[in-house]
Amino acid sequence: MNTFGHLLRVTTFGESHGPAIGCVIDGCPPGIALESADFANDLGRRASGRTRHTSQRHEEDTVEILSGVYEGSTTGTPIALLIRNVDARSRDYARIAEQFRPGHADYTYWRKYGIRDPRGGGRSSARETTMRVAAGVVAKKWLAERHHIQARAFVAQIGERKPARFDWDAVESNPLFWPDNDEVGEIESMLDALRKSGDSLGARIDVIADGVPAGWGEPVYGKLDAELAAALMSINAVKGVEIGAGFDAVAQRGSEHRDAMTPQGFRSNHAGGILGGISSGQRIRCSVAFKPTSSLRLPVESVDIEGNVVEVITTGRHDPCVGLRAPPICEAMMALVLIDQALRHRAQCGDVAPTRPDIPAGVE
Amino acid sequence: MNTFGHLLRVTTFGESHGPAIGCVIDGCPPGIALESADFANDLGRRASGRTRHTSQRHEEDTVEILSGVYEGSTTGTPIALLIRNVDARSRDYARIAEQFRPGHADYTYWRKYGIRDPRGGGRSSARETTMRVAAGVVAKKWLAERHHIQARAFVAQIGERKPARFDWDAVESNPLFWPDNDEVGEIESMLDALRKSGDSLGARIDVIADGVPAGWGEPVYGKLDAELAAALMSINAVKGVEIGAGFDAVAQRGSEHRDAMTPQGFRSNHAGGILGGISSGQRIRCSVAFKPTSSLRLPVESVDIEGNVVEVITTGRHDPCVGLRAPPICEAMMALVLIDQALRHRAQCGDVAPTRPDIPAGVE
Amino acid sequence: MNTFGHLLRVTTFGESHGPAIGCVIDGCPPGIALESADFANDLGRRASGRTRHTSQRHEEDTVEILSGVYEGSTTGTPIALLIRNVDARSRDYARIAEQFRPGHADYTYWRKYGIRDPRGGGRSSARETTMRVAAGVVAKKWLAERHHIQARAFVAQIGERKPARFDWDAVESNPLFWPDNDEVGEIESMLDALRKSGDSLGARIDVIADGVPAGWGEPVYGKLDAELAAALMSINAVKGVEIGAGFDAVAQRGSEHRDAMTPQGFRSNHAGGILGGISSGQRIRCSVAFKPTSSLRLPVESVDIEGNVVEVITTGRHDPCVGLRAPPICEAMMALVLIDQALRHRAQCGDVAPTRPDIPAGVE
Amino acid sequence: MNTFGHLLRVTTFGESHGPAIGCVIDGCPPGIALESADFANDLGRRASGRTRHTSQRHEEDTVEILSGVYEGSTTGTPIALLIRNVDARSRDYARIAEQFRPGHADYTYWRKYGIRDPRGGGRSSARETTMRVAAGVVAKKWLAERHHIQARAFVAQIGERKPARFDWDAVESNPLFWPDNDEVGEIESMLDALRKSGDSLGARIDVIADGVPAGWGEPVYGKLDAELAAALMSINAVKGVEIGAGFDAVAQRGSEHRDAMTPQGFRSNHAGGILGGISSGQRIRCSVAFKPTSSLRLPVESVDIEGNVVEVITTGRHDPCVGLRAPPICEAMMALVLIDQALRHRAQCGDVAPTRPDIPAGVE
Repeated sequence: MNTFGHLLRVTTFGESHGPAIGCVIDGCPPGIALESADFANDLGRRASGRTRHTSQRHEEDTVEILSGVYEGSTTGTPIALLIRNVDARSRDYARIAEQFRPGHADYTYWRKYGIRDPRGGGRSSARETTMRVAAGVVAKKWLAERHHIQARAFVAQIGERKPARFDWDAVESNPLFWPDNDEVGEIESMLDALRKSGDSLGARIDVIADGVPAGWGEPVYGKLDAELAAALMSINAVKGVEIGAGFDAVAQRGSEHRDAMTPQGFRSNHAGGILGGISSGQRIRCSVAFKPTSSLRLPVESVDIEGNVVEVITTGRHDPCVGLRAPPICEAMMALVLIDQALRHRAQCGDVAPTRPDIPAGVE
Repeated sequence: MNTFGHLLRVTTFGESHGPAIGCVIDGCPPGIALESADFANDLGRRASGRTRHTSQRHEEDTVEILSGVYEGSTTGTPIALLIRNVDARSRDYARIAEQFRPGHADYTYWRKYGIRDPRGGGRSSARETTMRVAAGVVAKKWLAERHHIQARAFVAQIGERKPARFDWDAVESNPLFWPDNDEVGEIESMLDALRKSGDSLGARIDVIADGVPAGWGEPVYGKLDAELAAALMSINAVKGVEIGAGFDAVAQRGSEHRDAMTPQGFRSNHAGGILGGISSGQRIRCSVAFKPTSSLRLPVESVDIEGNVVEVITTGRHDPCVGLRAPPICEAMMALVLIDQALRHRAQCGDVAPTRPDIPAGVE
Repeated sequence: MNTFGHLLRVTTFGESHGPAIGCVIDGCPPGIALESADFANDLGRRASGRTRHTSQRHEEDTVEILSGVYEGSTTGTPIALLIRNVDARSRDYARIAEQFRPGHADYTYWRKYGIRDPRGGGRSSARETTMRVAAGVVAKKWLAERHHIQARAFVAQIGERKPARFDWDAVESNPLFWPDNDEVGEIESMLDALRKSGDSLGARIDVIADGVPAGWGEPVYGKLDAELAAALMSINAVKGVEIGAGFDAVAQRGSEHRDAMTPQGFRSNHAGGILGGISSGQRIRCSVAFKPTSSLRLPVESVDIEGNVVEVITTGRHDPCVGLRAPPICEAMMALVLIDQALRHRAQCGDVAPTRPDIPAGVE
Repeated sequence: MNTFGHLLRVTTFGESHGPAIGCVIDGCPPGIALESADFANDLGRRASGRTRHTSQRHEEDTVEILSGVYEGSTTGTPIALLIRNVDARSRDYARIAEQFRPGHADYTYWRKYGIRDPRGGGRSSARETTMRVAAGVVAKKWLAERHHIQARAFVAQIGERKPARFDWDAVESNPLFWPDNDEVGEIESMLDALRKSGDSLGARIDVIADGVPAGWGEPVYGKLDAELAAALMSINAVKGVEIGAGFDAVAQRGSEHRDAMTPQGFRSNHAGGILGGISSGQRIRCSVAFKPTSSLRLPVESVDIEGNVVEVITTGRHDPCVGLRAPPICEAMMALVLIDQALRHRAQCGDVAPTRPDIPAGVE
């Protein structure tokens, strides 16, 4: 189950401190321009060394394309991508092999498989998300070129802090994906203090897609929102996913929640762009909860593989807020769900003559 | 994509007001005692006629077992279940065929397929969930008999109202799945007023599973939490899913969120019983947001299939709070995810010798 | 694993002498005209009562459409089909419950599931193929309407007997699907003698599809020929499948086998219309070996469920040559593979601009 | 569709003359001892340089394990294998880019994808089968260690030549996988003459598995024989697959074909070890037809990408009989089907108490 998607299928492999990580993208439409350099931007956005507030590991991730591309164009055959692990400091993880870190997958892998690769968290490390981002690059290209769809994400909350203003340009201009540049200094100070204290905070990431046409998504179990929920929940550290109004819908009245329709567009978007599991032509809106990282310098009670009581302390680098590198990952998962649904829709409904009316997106 | 699951696969079919609804359960382990009467309890719990606060349609749902059972026992071949639709008042839905109801799937089905069955919402009706509940009965039986696992759900919030106390016995003794019997009268009055006003409210449902052993779930894309998120999000009207602390994790510190481990058990359960996508042996805890129903007597602006502006009013029966029949559906989806993961775990890891230590569930 | 196909998925259910058999067709394109009467022709062609040479069971199979069709048109939602079993003479099968019939699945089901439904062979009965034929009707309609593709099959050999001449009109005009009407009387005499002797014979069925465009099929594991092989081998009693030259290719020279290409068409068709797993635009040609039925009046040595030596004799009706009802089943499996591959091709390669040259089919 | 299997899933990637070929094996049971050297034997058996009768390309294939193995043992996470292409003489293939080679996938890839990698046949090259063999090594290890199952194959026919005697030891001691060592010299002379003439011949490969317990395989569409048929037909150049008696069953009487059962074992094995799609405990027997290679020094009529008539001649190395390197590939596909079915059987039927009687394999 290391494969994601039905028609555009991404299979990832690799451990945090093994020889390499990589993925195979199968079912990709032919004729997409693709070269190694295409991956640099999003991998850079995700990279842990981007700011001093994310893990200090120096990941010079260069993607090698092993197959599926001929003379700069995808051929329809599997695209294999490879990144060698160069900065794998296995020595940091010697003690971890004997202990279970609370809040991590150490214990559960141990119980499931009877064996685990403890080096850097092995397969359960967030290192795996590098390949989600890489695969997402291909999906984003196709969605943009063929449908003018754009998937974007930003940090909507760190701990209890929410931005006062919203500006897309800010999101891409500061290292925190934060929508208000004026607040960045203040938040950096907060994160510095947090790092100093040895503790961490959670974050909320909002991810949206504009330009998705009405009609994508498959009832009843392959609903667009159900697949987005699975895709986002499968990212390390995620504990919750909302579509549109999300949990706010609990306290809403039906007369408030339902989005009125007019020939000029929808009057609101509590649905988050999805009705009955199918896109409505509105903006797709999701919100994702990331837990605070559990690897802390602060000690915690645990158990070792012999069942003895131990105190676990994580030394070395760690992220005070893992959510800060999540926006490109969320965008990638959004894009991968969308391309897969687009292909499935074309498969089943490619014969359907365009129906009318075509209601504009309206209120985002 | 009307199939759910990988090894225990449920395929449902049927429209709200078509001849019948049904499902095929494939991959079921042989040797489970099963008869028609086994479905009565959970279908009754779900049935819309249970209280006056849910839709007044009189659904005398009797399940016929068409295959897969011989002399009262499952045989390992596909189990087909059938319910005839007897109370399909198609006359109520004549106007609906020409209009799009805001907040419903009318428009999106129309745009996707170029055709839709408007009778009672057709395939997008919550009627489909009857078959999820029926399939869930089989899953629950196996989980209980083989692993002593119990999946249960309750209404944790209606609108802004939360229960003051929690009592499992109350949940099953009042018609609202409400955890505090003393408050039931008050809430019924609230719902009566709501129905009178023609409006509706959302609800939060919590669903839990006790007894799940450590080790179930498949990293990286088939994570137990990712599949629960998809399963629950695929239920009609759901807008959000949380595992464990959910969105509360955003404002938590890492030192608070991570669940300390001791030989006597976990000290807390912010993880919701899942670490790295694999069960930890703790209680599995999910929370689900149901939107308020959009079919209201209150008029709303919309568009017809010619693109003209229209005013939509839903007459006839409707639920002031659809979440009130959701607990058995949530339990069923939880059970279906668990049995599927159990079978997948046995497939891959059936050779693994039991590992130690085995940390008790501890704090729920 | 009672589901066939990736995008157009058919799930069948039902036992030979249970309450009913049926199927769910999921992923069907919307907008295909469909009614109950559409199934009559192919089910009639398959029906065992067609000639006196196939089993005498009187199967008045009327298909009920339970879902997925609205006002005579498919809607894109699952199409459920149901046939009640009316002529289930369970009394014939009392002894069978205690014995294993050699050449049947009795022993293997018993060993796999620990339980089996012995009535009429239960799930392993050829009765299941009724639903393949029914699902094939839908596939054939789409292939014919959308691509002018026709899938046809005939009996190419019974025992050692092969037809002297070939005439498509003959195939559909005699009850044996035999390509030479002049020989039908003689073969009927042969079959009468065979039935009288209590024995049976095998048959070879050839199945072809005309009109398949170049480009369908998915390398490397979803090859068109690989999926045809699986589809045909999954039919009861099949022991071998050939594509094009098949086993004759073993003794061929490369210079003879390879099909020369000209702008006017291929000069031969040893490939059977498939190169590298992808259709070439030529006729698709398969040949299928059906074993002789094992249910005979002639006694055979066997074992009962206690391990005792027994002599098994099958009384009642039986087919002296099961292959004689196989042509419609082979056509259905061919059609189901083709529609599925057509949808998958459209999904991945719907963007591909038509390439040239387009070489005609040429020699069949 | 570059993935094979349901629970033990192998995804291969790579073009003949691209940077590398590789695969990802997902779902592998943990705890299997595995190191790079384990692949050498079977890859060597397959390697084209093994005898002078197969292609002269010098493939020093060394497999690098990129993931999924920790301290010499599989961990249950995806196992990625990589082989760099070192001997890719792209210069040989310049003209091929403009022409379609009859009997090859050139034309069909072109029509499907609108683009193709012509270097050495790209993805459609038999080079891909290297990775099937590598993945098969892992499957074989598990089958042998856990179930004492052995999958073996041999060359049963070259052109019209069949071996006079059968000896397993001979198969592995001569470079032709030929069952009679005394004939090897003669066959080598025949192949030398064939190579000199510029032509090629087909071959028949028999592949068997001993030790498979009764009960593996899934009716109705996931039948063990159906999956073997697909697996073997998916190998390059295969045109036919038989199980047990195969096409000989056409001319058999039922009284001859059905395999009588006794407490001491089956009296014959016309079924090839599979009844109703489920293993019977007998030897699994398949026979596979390989066509003669189409890349010949002898000219053939064809068409170029502009639609012009051209004469195609293949210069450089080629195999006079591609079937001669097929035995390890057939074994690998057999092993991959068996492990996948074994895991699926354990998933669904792991609860089933062992049933009696257990009939020995008897006659092979």
